[in-house]
Amino acid sequence: MKPCEEEGPGAAAGGDPWKECMEVAVQLARRAGQIIKKALTEEKHVSTKTSAADLVTETDNFVENVIISALKEKFPSHRFIGEESTAAGSKCVLTDSPTWIIDPIDGTCNFVHRFPTVAVSIGFAVNQELEFGVIYHCTEERLYTGRRGQGAFCNEKRLQVSKETDKSKALILTEIGPKRDPETLKLFLGNMESLLKAKVHGIRVIGSSTLALCHLASGAADAYYQFGLHCWDLAAATVIIREAGGIVIDTSV
Amino acid sequence: MKPCEEEGPGAAAGGDPWKECMEVAVQLARRAGQIIKKALTEEKHVSTKTSAADLVTETDNFVENVIISALKEKFPSHRFIGEESTAAGSKCVLTDSPTWIIDPIDGTCNFVHRFPTVAVSIGFAVNQELEFGVIYHCTEERLYTGRRGQGAFCNEKRLQVSKETDKSKALILTEIGPKRDPETLKLFLGNMESLLKAKVHGIRVIGSSTLALCHLASGAADAYYQFGLHCWDLAAATVIIREAGGIVIDTSV
Repeated sequence: MKPCEEEGPGAAAGGDPWKECMEVAVQLARRAGQIIKKALTEEKHVSTKTSAADLVTETDNFVENVIISALKEKFPSHRFIGEESTAAGSKCVLTDSPTWIIDPIDGTCNFVHRFPTVAVSIGFAVNQELEFGVIYHCTEERLYTGRRGQGAFCNEKRLQVSKETDKSKALILTEIGPKRDPETLKLFLGNMESLLKAKVHGIRVIGSSTLALCHLASGAADAYYQFGLHCWDLAAATVIIREAGGIVIDTSV
Repeated sequence: MKPCEEEGPGAAAGGDPWKECMEVAVQLARRAGQIIKKALTEEKHVSTKTSAADLVTETDNFVENVIISALKEKFPSHRFIGEESTAAGSKCVLTDSPTWIIDPIDGTCNFVHRFPTVAVSIGFAVNQELEFGVIYHCTEERLYTGRRGQGAFCNEKRLQVSKETDKSKALILTEIGPKRDPETLKLFLGNMESLLKAKVHGIRVIGSSTLALCHLASGAADAYYQFGLHCWDLAAATVIIREAGGIVIDTSV
């Protein structure tokens, strides 16, 4: 394992071995965000993956390639897990090596429809522990960052999760996801019914799990749940939520 | 009935008798938006109206009062329908007189939670026909305007609804609203189930009917439906959608 400062001239000695990595992540997230913002209004060639609602565009692949190729050049010993590389057959394995976990466009269905809720998500783990997360809201130019032990921020403003514990006063976020089989629909609608019967203030579905989790970190919502999330949906956001005082749990383990 | 230019010195003779009214609406929407944006992050005193999820804050009342008092001073013969005035007992009557239809904060539940999807909505009708609509997205500083016969715009960019006619390729917007009785839940969840079974690309619930309708006008979504909307949720957005080439229908008549 090589910390970032061993690999680039810009990394001065300091207390944080992953500082330069995080700085590069921020630069790449912003760069990717500009590509996505421009592409948002253009015509797109849309393909499907696991279902008719599981969409991918040439921009997803292009952006993931831009991010990973830049990182590989700078940090050749690191490993990568990317949504589109995985869809194309790459193995999705988390080792102890420094590993970048990337969702080039979170909210691809929104992106396809020009619905302006899309984000780039870059997470980074070492020894299978998440070190930092960087998320860029492409149309609103909001940069969310979280560094383990150093807090979470949105455009340099410190984030703090909500302190609400009363479900009947909560705003809840969820996502439908692309699956439309009867079991998935039953689960999704059943959970929604339970929450509405519990008289929550509201339920929001914005089409980007990453940005939903950023809302959670900023205290703009009180809880989020979803079944079927992938590691690239969660990696960056998990650091941000934890550093904002929140909890991320996998209810299936 | 008095067109606006009869009432203010700033209204030069021109082809549009309601031009000055619309200019005033834009100014007031921006001013209200600034008040709301500032109040978004502050502590709020929250009350409920028709249900535990039907919320109102002092800012809703304050902003409505700012808008209506400024309009009354400028256009003393005009009439007003405001969400909070109506909740406080004012009659909600549309006559042939020039009438302003105002939602001071559309997305109050979002506002209460600091969820940054809130808007000011100002519609204007004469002879019971909607003449213009002005909607201001308070946190993203997007101004949506529509003038009957003259198009719809977002920050001066012309709006055009989507041309998608295939439900299985559609992004659909809806809202839950504040009602939680069994009949409302059954209707809401049943409609959502039907759409998901029809394999729509996605369903979004953003917590502001006005801004959902603006997404529709901009082509970022393909359809919107909701039961229980009030005139102040719809008035301004209706002009904007129609002028963007869309259709607004009441399925209950």
